[in-house]
Amino acid sequence: MTEPLAPGAVIGILGGGQLGRMLSVAASRLGFRCHIYDPAEGPPAADVAWKSTTGAWEDAAALAAFARGVDVVTYEFENVPADSLDAIEAEAPVFPPRAALATSQDRLTEKNFLTRLGLATAAYAAAASVADIDLALGTIAGPAILKTRRLGYDGKGQATLSGPADAAAAFERIGGEEAIVEGRVFFARELSVIAARGRDGRVIAFEPGENVHRDGILRTTTVPSAAPRTTRAEAVEIATAILEALDYVGVIGVELFETGDGLLVNEFAPRVHNSGHWTMDGGTPCQFEAHIRAIAGWPLPQPVRTADVVMENLVGEEAERAVGLATEPGAALHLYGKADMRPGRKMGHLNRVTPV
Amino acid sequence: MTEPLAPGAVIGILGGGQLGRMLSVAASRLGFRCHIYDPAEGPPAADVAWKSTTGAWEDAAALAAFARGVDVVTYEFENVPADSLDAIEAEAPVFPPRAALATSQDRLTEKNFLTRLGLATAAYAAAASVADIDLALGTIAGPAILKTRRLGYDGKGQATLSGPADAAAAFERIGGEEAIVEGRVFFARELSVIAARGRDGRVIAFEPGENVHRDGILRTTTVPSAAPRTTRAEAVEIATAILEALDYVGVIGVELFETGDGLLVNEFAPRVHNSGHWTMDGGTPCQFEAHIRAIAGWPLPQPVRTADVVMENLVGEEAERAVGLATEPGAALHLYGKADMRPGRKMGHLNRVTPV
Repeated sequence: MTEPLAPGAVIGILGGGQLGRMLSVAASRLGFRCHIYDPAEGPPAADVAWKSTTGAWEDAAALAAFARGVDVVTYEFENVPADSLDAIEAEAPVFPPRAALATSQDRLTEKNFLTRLGLATAAYAAAASVADIDLALGTIAGPAILKTRRLGYDGKGQATLSGPADAAAAFERIGGEEAIVEGRVFFARELSVIAARGRDGRVIAFEPGENVHRDGILRTTTVPSAAPRTTRAEAVEIATAILEALDYVGVIGVELFETGDGLLVNEFAPRVHNSGHWTMDGGTPCQFEAHIRAIAGWPLPQPVRTADVVMENLVGEEAERAVGLATEPGAALHLYGKADMRPGRKMGHLNRVTPV
Repeated sequence: MTEPLAPGAVIGILGGGQLGRMLSVAASRLGFRCHIYDPAEGPPAADVAWKSTTGAWEDAAALAAFARGVDVVTYEFENVPADSLDAIEAEAPVFPPRAALATSQDRLTEKNFLTRLGLATAAYAAAASVADIDLALGTIAGPAILKTRRLGYDGKGQATLSGPADAAAAFERIGGEEAIVEGRVFFARELSVIAARGRDGRVIAFEPGENVHRDGILRTTTVPSAAPRTTRAEAVEIATAILEALDYVGVIGVELFETGDGLLVNEFAPRVHNSGHWTMDGGTPCQFEAHIRAIAGWPLPQPVRTADVVMENLVGEEAERAVGLATEPGAALHLYGKADMRPGRKMGHLNRVTPV
């Protein structure tokens, strides 16, 4: 176990979107300074960071220089090329560990990892051709979804498969990339667990939230969920098993489906997660601070929840309602400082709180 | 009533200490960017601000240039020279209004203002010489305190007066400056009210806190106070009267004494206040966000409190305990990113929360 980072230390963050922005603010509360690395000029996180560098993900030299000036590196952007990560790791420790990143970046690797851990997932099969899709649909009963193995998020890189007749069109729609066929899951609820593991191996978890998606984008997370207590406890156990198997350090977001056959793991994100934004107004610490504590080698106290929260994402033009929403007592507004409002773009979120 | 500032607007903050730092973070949540002006290089607020300028308080040209680049100006530092404020006001609106600043900067003006409002204060008299002090002690029964009219804070610029024999030494101790003699108040509790008034005249108030000082420095604020409900309601009414009399915009901190003869107003600060730091973990909005909303012309919703809080300041070397304190569940830590630890310097604070 290394010494905890002292206040005044510098945390490097790969990616300057809203997650980097909220991480930077949380780090400042512990006396840390943040240096943001992002390909765009003036990304949201730069407004509240000590320093920011504009550079490409492929620029290993720029990334190495960035890493030399910080005490630890973390990321909100999960698709940094492996060569660039090599250059960074030669200069500073990177958390969460790369094994977690490599596992979650590839849907097939992720599903295989979860299966090996004995965790239930949707039925799945690898598919790199229309013939593979046909074959998979033969073993997976009922409707399915074709998903690219890499780089899919917020509903992108996906196509529905009602049956073999859809295979060719679906494969074309996802760009003919390596993919998996996943049996469609009929679920009562989608839950997510935000949990953290420290450099000392200690695990903490926030109260599981209940998610509602629309058009593949998270719309609301409600805490507490109406799921039975035993189900929520099981969800936390699953997240803990994943953290331990990955020898993880930092915050993870694990999405699960509550089905008639029990909990299925959908996927995990090796970073702070949109479904954990409620923690910013629901008690202490928030997920962003938990992440910073973990990667800095600080202790991780069990979260104390002081409020029930409904988190609502403000997507695209919904952000125009922001000042109006700001009149509602107990509605905590969080805008991300994004200049361009685009359809489907996450512009901010609102946490509606009531005392527990 | 002017239009509310749109997200993306720039807020100028005079002073880059911990108050400016926490204001900048709160402003970012509403999508604003902050520009800090401070005489020191790399002040605490610059770690979490969009931009910062290093310049003297007397440099009217630099201040005017600063003000030209922002949409509204506010301050954490109360002693900006009048000429400099003139230069700023020629370029951008300044909130809270200068009348409030002028009143609170001078203890005699402040006491006279409160008296004219019909609010009770400690007995007081102006004193610009040892003879004045003698005269004052004749009318103020019992022990008293000599305080400079200007620039006193955290116990500086003060001397105790047990009787006329102390007059000469006390006057020397405060540097022979224009002063007031204030009758010492025997109180059951010190309360403070953090309240805000919007550009539309709407007033909101946080639950009054109970303060404990040591060596002239605030040590803890406890919310809720054990004071009777009627006393707490009266404290809020007093703060409201002050806000309205000053045609105030922004957050004010009003300190009061609960005595056998009712509430006495001690003083007010025309800014966010240390005794309001509990609001950062006690519900929504916090005092910093309330201030930003007010000066930006945004609506001010009534605060929703979700936690009981004991706020403890970390003064000087107490900050060394920070990582240790960080193990306590429900203890929200806030460090200010100050490089130099000096005795008596406020380095951070801790909010211990329990659900309401």
